[in-house]
Amino acid sequence: MDFFEQSLERHRELKGKIEIRSRMRLETLEDLSIAYTPGVARPCERIAENPAEAWDLTWKGRTVAVVSDGSAVLGLGDIGPEASLPVMEGKAALFREFAGVDAVPVVLNAHDPQEIISIVRAISPTFGGINLEDISAPRCFEIEDGLQDIGIPVLHDDQHGTAIVLLAALINASRALNTSLAHLNIVLNGAGAAGLAIANLLTCQDQAEQCIPVGSLRVCDSKGIIWPGRPGNNPQKETIARLTNPDGDQGDLRDALRGANAFIGVSKGNLLNADDIRLMEPESIVLAMANPTPEILPDEAVRGGAAIVGTGRSDFPNQVNNVLAFPGLFRGALESRAKRFTTGMKFAAIQAICEGVEEPTTHRILPSPFNRSLAVSVANAVAESARRAKVCHESTKDTE
Amino acid sequence: MDFFEQSLERHRELKGKIEIRSRMRLETLEDLSIAYTPGVARPCERIAENPAEAWDLTWKGRTVAVVSDGSAVLGLGDIGPEASLPVMEGKAALFREFAGVDAVPVVLNAHDPQEIISIVRAISPTFGGINLEDISAPRCFEIEDGLQDIGIPVLHDDQHGTAIVLLAALINASRALNTSLAHLNIVLNGAGAAGLAIANLLTCQDQAEQCIPVGSLRVCDSKGIIWPGRPGNNPQKETIARLTNPDGDQGDLRDALRGANAFIGVSKGNLLNADDIRLMEPESIVLAMANPTPEILPDEAVRGGAAIVGTGRSDFPNQVNNVLAFPGLFRGALESRAKRFTTGMKFAAIQAICEGVEEPTTHRILPSPFNRSLAVSVANAVAESARRAKVCHESTKDTE
Repeated sequence: MDFFEQSLERHRELKGKIEIRSRMRLETLEDLSIAYTPGVARPCERIAENPAEAWDLTWKGRTVAVVSDGSAVLGLGDIGPEASLPVMEGKAALFREFAGVDAVPVVLNAHDPQEIISIVRAISPTFGGINLEDISAPRCFEIEDGLQDIGIPVLHDDQHGTAIVLLAALINASRALNTSLAHLNIVLNGAGAAGLAIANLLTCQDQAEQCIPVGSLRVCDSKGIIWPGRPGNNPQKETIARLTNPDGDQGDLRDALRGANAFIGVSKGNLLNADDIRLMEPESIVLAMANPTPEILPDEAVRGGAAIVGTGRSDFPNQVNNVLAFPGLFRGALESRAKRFTTGMKFAAIQAICEGVEEPTTHRILPSPFNRSLAVSVANAVAESARRAKVCHESTKDTE
Repeated sequence: MDFFEQSLERHRELKGKIEIRSRMRLETLEDLSIAYTPGVARPCERIAENPAEAWDLTWKGRTVAVVSDGSAVLGLGDIGPEASLPVMEGKAALFREFAGVDAVPVVLNAHDPQEIISIVRAISPTFGGINLEDISAPRCFEIEDGLQDIGIPVLHDDQHGTAIVLLAALINASRALNTSLAHLNIVLNGAGAAGLAIANLLTCQDQAEQCIPVGSLRVCDSKGIIWPGRPGNNPQKETIARLTNPDGDQGDLRDALRGANAFIGVSKGNLLNADDIRLMEPESIVLAMANPTPEILPDEAVRGGAAIVGTGRSDFPNQVNNVLAFPGLFRGALESRAKRFTTGMKFAAIQAICEGVEEPTTHRILPSPFNRSLAVSVANAVAESARRAKVCHESTKDTE
């Protein structure tokens, strides 16, 4: 049985990958009276008096919704809500297994960004955080922006989870080469959800104190280098173009690569060959994230002079995997009762992931996804950053 | 520590009563690749080709959302979504423990019925059924009606769960007295969500073949007997008035009780005394469901001549408890992949609950809530009824 058939059979056998369990035995009338009526009235009354008690008396303080409309599922595109459910369940399983966070898939039969905003806003009292997933650009930007004031942290993982792990990879890659981000001239290929989030972090748009300056950054999409005023630029691309390319340099991806020493691909497979990498400085860093086929295979990139190659794949060294970020990121946000994610919290996560490898080497720039203490370190760093930034709901313990 | 404080402490200790668990161990890269990317693509593609596969390949086929806006929480009223969350978690715990159904609380920051309909419709691809809970009348009617075409069964438990269990209690009470529903002259006091659902079942509005005719039915509310054209009647009350009281009899609750032999109260505590029961025929049936204080206490009702008294309370005999119905009801609907609940499915549940007691006596008209085989019997009866009525999605097995 081939690997994909094996996955299908496992899904059929389990009827889905997650389940709800009761934390209370319900074996006597007293159990029932405590869990349900009449005893349940007391916690209800407490929360009615002070909504912050919901974090202590219900699952809210440990629960995240994984929300998708199934419009941009990895490798599959717009397959709709039902068909995206296995991905959201997988994500929920990862949340639980890697960070002890309870995550609930919520797939939506809705497409209009404002409608999705209303729905997520309406269901938000149930949860302590919202992980937006596999929502197509540019709708994902409008939706995430429109949910920043709902009082619980909302994060589109395809943007920020990816950006966080990639930046950690880039930092540790430069450590392995005894250099630093300040000496990197980076070409970023791909200006969708993930590409723009990476560009935003690299250009320090939010001026977080932790922001790390890079040598230079060129952003490309399928039409080549993005420049200010280029016809068809969406507002996000226009902003990035002004920040990274104020002189209006034009050209294709190969023009951009000339003289660069780092490449980040969040675009599509089989774009580059060894000759393209030779346009770059020797000893370059190549992070080729297209899935399942990277922009360039590791062997080919090394042939072109790359010193470090990372991909999204588990069968090559240096897998750059979102699972290093999102479980700890949300756990930290939940533990600190954060109202939203700040850029500082994202940089705290980046730093914790970087510190997950004591001595980065060319073949090991990131911690293993199975290092279970990583989510705890990330969570602690994120929670501390949130508290320092004072973006948290008061704990009931603070006020007692 | 008093009982309510004990409940509060237990809620604080557990941080909520339910949790999400992964059904797969995620310990190797292969586990990850099956649960998540890239293996998850195969079940996604299958569902995209045939949405019915969602029942086999995800949690949809065993999962229900418990949806509330917190506007009519038992004994507490309109306390809002966060404060109602402990009740919805309790219900979810009961679903799991009594019927192995996975239930997800979803509390909504929304009040307008049409808005709630849109939200539930949008989240419905995630679930195999919707349990509406603690939503105030008459909004609950509009919301439930507006969701009957969404392709998964939607049921407001405060209406139909209560009605089902009460009707089962009434049938077995008449069996215990060697009589039948056809000989009962019933006074129903309370015309809110539960009262109207009971009246609808008793008057066979949907003409289900299983419907059991009663002798007579008088419906009262706080203003007395409901009659056609009475000022202030909502459409639901007007319909019931025309069906049960075409001659337009008027009077108060005591007038209605005169000569009746069964009383059903879904109203408020301490309404009646022994003298009121004496207005009824001797050997009467009294089901006094107000919570936590019944319309009349059992001792007092017996003093007035009642032969059988049931209440919502666990500390008296004959507890009439929703938990006898909703777990099996939804399990049967999920197992048959029902698109909606029919009146036939409700009567199938009533019959299964009645059969849960072999020989009803005046002190035992209903099965114990801890009889774990009851939910299975109810589920089987409901599923069979759904299949017979052909209101089910095709199983993928049917088409293979």
